[in-house]
Amino acid sequence: MSELATPLPDFMAEKPLFMCVMSNTDTAKIPNISAAGKTPELTDYTPAGDCELIELGHIKSVPVLPFSPSGSPTPALITRSALRLSQTPAIYVNSGLRKLPSIPVVDLHATPGADIRSGQAVADVEDIFKNGQLLGEHIGKLSDFIVIGESTPGGTTTALAILRCLGMDGNTSSSISTNPMGLKMRIVNEAMEKSSIGFGDLTDDPLRAVELFGDPMMPAVAGLAEGLCNNDAKVVLAGGTQMVAVLAIIRALGIEGDISIATTKFVANDTSAHFHEMVDSLGYHAYVTDPGFYNSDIDGLLGYERGEVKEGVGAGGALLLAAMAGVGQDEILTDVESFYRQLVEEST
Amino acid sequence: MSELATPLPDFMAEKPLFMCVMSNTDTAKIPNISAAGKTPELTDYTPAGDCELIELGHIKSVPVLPFSPSGSPTPALITRSALRLSQTPAIYVNSGLRKLPSIPVVDLHATPGADIRSGQAVADVEDIFKNGQLLGEHIGKLSDFIVIGESTPGGTTTALAILRCLGMDGNTSSSISTNPMGLKMRIVNEAMEKSSIGFGDLTDDPLRAVELFGDPMMPAVAGLAEGLCNNDAKVVLAGGTQMVAVLAIIRALGIEGDISIATTKFVANDTSAHFHEMVDSLGYHAYVTDPGFYNSDIDGLLGYERGEVKEGVGAGGALLLAAMAGVGQDEILTDVESFYRQLVEEST
Repeated sequence: MSELATPLPDFMAEKPLFMCVMSNTDTAKIPNISAAGKTPELTDYTPAGDCELIELGHIKSVPVLPFSPSGSPTPALITRSALRLSQTPAIYVNSGLRKLPSIPVVDLHATPGADIRSGQAVADVEDIFKNGQLLGEHIGKLSDFIVIGESTPGGTTTALAILRCLGMDGNTSSSISTNPMGLKMRIVNEAMEKSSIGFGDLTDDPLRAVELFGDPMMPAVAGLAEGLCNNDAKVVLAGGTQMVAVLAIIRALGIEGDISIATTKFVANDTSAHFHEMVDSLGYHAYVTDPGFYNSDIDGLLGYERGEVKEGVGAGGALLLAAMAGVGQDEILTDVESFYRQLVEEST
Repeated sequence: MSELATPLPDFMAEKPLFMCVMSNTDTAKIPNISAAGKTPELTDYTPAGDCELIELGHIKSVPVLPFSPSGSPTPALITRSALRLSQTPAIYVNSGLRKLPSIPVVDLHATPGADIRSGQAVADVEDIFKNGQLLGEHIGKLSDFIVIGESTPGGTTTALAILRCLGMDGNTSSSISTNPMGLKMRIVNEAMEKSSIGFGDLTDDPLRAVELFGDPMMPAVAGLAEGLCNNDAKVVLAGGTQMVAVLAIIRALGIEGDISIATTKFVANDTSAHFHEMVDSLGYHAYVTDPGFYNSDIDGLLGYERGEVKEGVGAGGALLLAAMAGVGQDEILTDVESFYRQLVEEST
């Protein structure tokens, strides 16, 4: 695969928009769950750092660059290059952040998520959904094509829990190269047992599933999708198995519209997860993108090819926007490499 | 004058948008300065209540309806009807609110304004301006015509201070029927004397003027205008003499673009203020709108004709959007009356 996006959409977007919904949870702080931050505590800063990198080109309110413990940079670098080169506008959404970025963010008044083993992972799920919908109703009158990414450390564990409550078998991907599926499954089983919820028990009540075992990003994105689709805008969820979980919620809620999913090849080709199988079984269309990192001589970027980082901050969907705007894989790679070198220089 | 808007713009807006920038200040709490709230303390809730009324049709997170002490309803009723009937999308911006509304709001990370006699009215003015600009750069890629209103109790006093620092003579309007110009001028003089700033002294440093004597709405709107104009969007500031002060800041900053101002006839015809003279001397174009309240038999609406409330929450600009969408004055009046009756019924 050498193309930026496969397939390319067969329509033009007149007023494309990228949105990024950000959340923090205590689930992310369970040891060895997330590599989205050098330590579990630092995952609180990852969403803020991600969107400051995209918007400002540097971190401002966070102490360290959101690099993985292995030294691979956050996918925010991909998102930044893709949005810059395609000149796509962006709107950032705070759905339960513990650390705010120093850029304009839409506040949905969500509180950060708790540990999913606590008995209530997300407070005020209906309010978050409704605020997402309100925002979507307005944005859907301005943009005809909205790509929604997320930055939610620990999100593949909450995604796994949601998929299981909604009766979907399949592994979620991971920000860690050796996907800790065993650990994630133990955490999820413990959480579900504690609330006496079994596999498929919440198929008819997806927002209850989110309340018990999800994260605050999920109802925000589902609500956004509802509001956007009410205005006939096309919606692409940008992410890996975390967004598959949101798709499952959207389908269970009966939200109808032109909704699809876009992710990177690093997720799509991840043999430890089941991206395509799950998207197919839900009945949605998937776009797969490739920033061409195998052509790089930067080890941090080659880490993506080794599976050390796979997706996040809507990187796959941002690449789709770039591909639709006629940006080439080589332009993306050159821009990401240049930005990576600048960041490393500045931080040493 | 019987038309909704005079003149009507000679262009069509493809993707019109209404924005509302909200701030709280301690200047609003100086006794007898503002009628935007039944008591000085309640002015903290007025912006939140205003935009909840527009967005939700009821107040949610505030204790009382934002009605003036005389019983006239907030101009948010006009804004709501105008946006509803024209189906214009809206984005709400928090630039230093003390009380947050329970709807999606873009957070610019501003702190509430202090009393202008304190020596520093607005903290981090440059940051607010830059965040406004960042937001404007994105929004300007989605919308070609943006009407920016505000809800900032006490704002005609901060506006007066800014106009005087920037060398503009003229009275500002008031939310009070008997414009307390003497009191406002005393407060402004006291503030300027304390900082040793005389008339016209800050013509070359408008953001310093905002820092000393302004409110957090001002740099947000000026920054928005900069970002929007950079993307060739047309900008209409929606308000009375408060927005004249922002126009003065915009001109002093050298921001160039298609910028104009829209207000209600209640401000434009206010003989205690000098709206037209000031707009003319700044060299901008003004639209004047009229919701036709003289045809109403509701005393709270007739209060507008008596000057008890004049403008706010971008009511004048929202009427301009309605007029451009072909909405008639009679439709506006009927819708405002119906909503007014519903609110009064619900609150008794």
